[in-house]
Amino acid sequence: MTFIEKLSAAWAANDSLLCVGLDPDMARLPAQFQNDPQGIYQFCTRIIDATADLACSFKPQIAYFAALGAEGQLEKICAYAKENYPHIPLILDAKRGDIGATAKQYAREAFDRYGADAVTVNPYMGSDSVEPYLEWSDRGVIILCRTSNAGGSDLQFLKVDGKPLYQHVAKLVAEKWNANGQCALVVGATFPEELAQVRGIVGDMPLLVPGIGAQGGDIEATVKAGRTYNGTGMMINSSRAILYATPQGGEDFAAAARRMAQETRDAINAHRA
Amino acid sequence: MTFIEKLSAAWAANDSLLCVGLDPDMARLPAQFQNDPQGIYQFCTRIIDATADLACSFKPQIAYFAALGAEGQLEKICAYAKENYPHIPLILDAKRGDIGATAKQYAREAFDRYGADAVTVNPYMGSDSVEPYLEWSDRGVIILCRTSNAGGSDLQFLKVDGKPLYQHVAKLVAEKWNANGQCALVVGATFPEELAQVRGIVGDMPLLVPGIGAQGGDIEATVKAGRTYNGTGMMINSSRAILYATPQGGEDFAAAARRMAQETRDAINAHRA
Repeated sequence: MTFIEKLSAAWAANDSLLCVGLDPDMARLPAQFQNDPQGIYQFCTRIIDATADLACSFKPQIAYFAALGAEGQLEKICAYAKENYPHIPLILDAKRGDIGATAKQYAREAFDRYGADAVTVNPYMGSDSVEPYLEWSDRGVIILCRTSNAGGSDLQFLKVDGKPLYQHVAKLVAEKWNANGQCALVVGATFPEELAQVRGIVGDMPLLVPGIGAQGGDIEATVKAGRTYNGTGMMINSSRAILYATPQGGEDFAAAARRMAQETRDAINAHRA
Repeated sequence: MTFIEKLSAAWAANDSLLCVGLDPDMARLPAQFQNDPQGIYQFCTRIIDATADLACSFKPQIAYFAALGAEGQLEKICAYAKENYPHIPLILDAKRGDIGATAKQYAREAFDRYGADAVTVNPYMGSDSVEPYLEWSDRGVIILCRTSNAGGSDLQFLKVDGKPLYQHVAKLVAEKWNANGQCALVVGATFPEELAQVRGIVGDMPLLVPGIGAQGGDIEATVKAGRTYNGTGMMINSSRAILYATPQGGEDFAAAARRMAQETRDAINAHRA
C-alpha cells in the first residue's frame, strides 16, 4: 500500500484530517518523564495511544530528538507506531535538502532507519535533490511550498513572472516531481488565501498544513481554503496544542491531549462538507 | 574567538583554502573499517590526522552518519577534531531549515551537541528560520545560495526583478542576516561566473565552495572567480576525491588522502595571487 492509499484509508477510517505532531520539548514534558532516560519515548507513545483513533497521521519532528541525542528513542517510537497502528501514516518531519548522493543517505534515514511512510523535503536545491526520495515509490515526499512562519515570505513571496515563488514550487511538484503520484506539499494555515491558490494549482494532491493551534491559524478558513471536492486532501497538523494541553506536570496529560485532539478533529470536520 | 576569526587564522596558518569534507560512505571505506562498529570514527580520525596541516576547515556531512544511526561516532569525531586541532574550524554540513522553535533545536544539535564552529542552513523558510542560529554569536551560519548540483537551477535561477533568486539570497544575507558578521554562503564551483556575481554582492564574506573534485568544477576558474582582494575568502571543499583517493581496500588510504589534499591545496594556491 502506498503512502497516498494509506492516508486516504486513514482519512476515512478515523473520519479525520488531523495530523498529530510529536515535538517533545523536554522542558515542557510532564515531570515524571523529565528524569527518565526513556521519558520521551514514554511520553510520545502515550500520546500516540491516546490519539490513534482520532488522527490521519503522526508526525514526529526529528529536531527535538537530534538536539538531545535521542535518535534511539525516535527509532523506538516509530517502531511502536508502526506495530500498533500500522494503518496510520507516519511522517518524519525532517525538511532535508541536499545533493543527490547525500539525499540518498537522508532517504535511507527516513524510510529505512525510521520506517517512515513519508518525509518532508526542502525544494531549494531542485530536482536531483528530491529524486532519491522519489525512488522509494511507495513512500510519500512532502515538499515545502508556503510555510506557516512569518519569515516564509522572504523568499516564497518573491515574484517570478508575476507570481510568487511558492506557486512555482507548487507547479514544479504537480507537473514534474509528482509523476508517480507520491508527492504532497506543505502549505501553512496562517495564509488561507494562499492555501486556496495552491489547491487550485495541484488538484487533489494532499497538503500538510501546519499553523493551527499554537501558531494561530483559523480552522474554518483553513479547511474551506484547502479541502478537495470530497472534503479531504489535507493533513492539518497540531503539535504543541495537543502535547501540552494540560498545565505542566498534570497527571492526565494523555486524557487532555485526547480531548484536545478530538475537539480539533471535530472543529475541522464541521467545515469539510 | 569567533568562527570568522578562527577561519582567517586557519587560512594563514596552513596557507590553505581547502575544506576537507567527511562523507563516510560505508560501502567505499577500506575493508578493515567495514566490520568495525567504530569503523567510521577510525576512518575519519585518520583522515583528519592526515590532512590537519593542509586544511582550513573540516566538514562532516551528517547524512552519512544519520543513515546508519552513527550519530555517536560523529560526536566522537567532532570531539577528536576539537581536542586535537582546535585551531581548525569544524563545520557541520546539515542544511537544516525550519520554523523558529524547531530551528532552535537544530542549533543546539549543531553547536552544543556536536560543538561545531559553523553549520550550513537552508534559506527557503526565511529570516525567523535562521535567527536561532545567529543567536549563537561566536558561531558561523553558512547559508545555501547557489548550489553545485544540476537541479540547483530549478529554483535558484528563477528571475526575480530581472535577477536570479540566488542573487536575492546573497543580498538578503549580506544586508540583513549578517548584522553580526557571522554569515557565509554556499556557492558551487560548477558555476564560476555565478560565483563571481556573488563575490561582487557580498564583499569579503566567506564562501563555502563545493563542486571541485568528484563533481567536476575547475579549480583555476573557481579560485579566480571567488577569491577576495587578499587571496582568501573561500573554503573550497573536496570530500570524495580525498577520502577515496586509493582504490578500495588500500592500506595507504591516509597517505593517499594526504597526497590528494596537498595537491588540491597547492592547485588552489597557484591561483590565489
